[in-house]
Amino acid sequence: MTPYRVSVHIVPRKGLLDPQGKAVTDALHTLGFAAVGDVHVGRHLVIETGAADATAAERSVRDMCARLLANPVTEDFEIAAVVAA
Amino acid sequence: MTPYRVSVHIVPRKGLLDPQGKAVTDALHTLGFAAVGDVHVGRHLVIETGAADATAAERSVRDMCARLLANPVTEDFEIAAVVAA
Repeated sequence: MTPYRVSVHIVPRKGLLDPQGKAVTDALHTLGFAAVGDVHVGRHLVIETGAADATAAERSVRDMCARLLANPVTEDFEIAAVVAA
Repeated sequence: MTPYRVSVHIVPRKGLLDPQGKAVTDALHTLGFAAVGDVHVGRHLVIETGAADATAAERSVRDMCARLLANPVTEDFEIAAVVAA
């Protein structure tokens, strides 16, 4: 078992309403950042896990996302990085 | 003004309590993912903004993080990517 550090992005599905992103956009406009267009707010998770190799670590984290971390109805996830810790 | 898409990670400062990460670790252990160690939960923002060049886009987003998006007492931020949209 090698320790791995896996980064995951969980973001609202495209086309779904993202009220938190809309609120951030409005707040940035109020602060004077007029050039800002859309903002998307999601979650960034860093999971430390042991696995035989990087492929097994990624597969394990995909399983975690499907079973617990991401809501399959409203969210998409992507594995951003798998690095040996 | 070129449109840029800037990705930002906002994470709890190292050494500070991360109760959300602890809750996720415990839930993953309960689901049978015994190899999971620490989990860190932060935010992943994608900001679409216009700027003269990539350097200006990154500088502008750093300013947004310092003024609105990240809590300087409890959070660190890093610019993960700056891509022309």
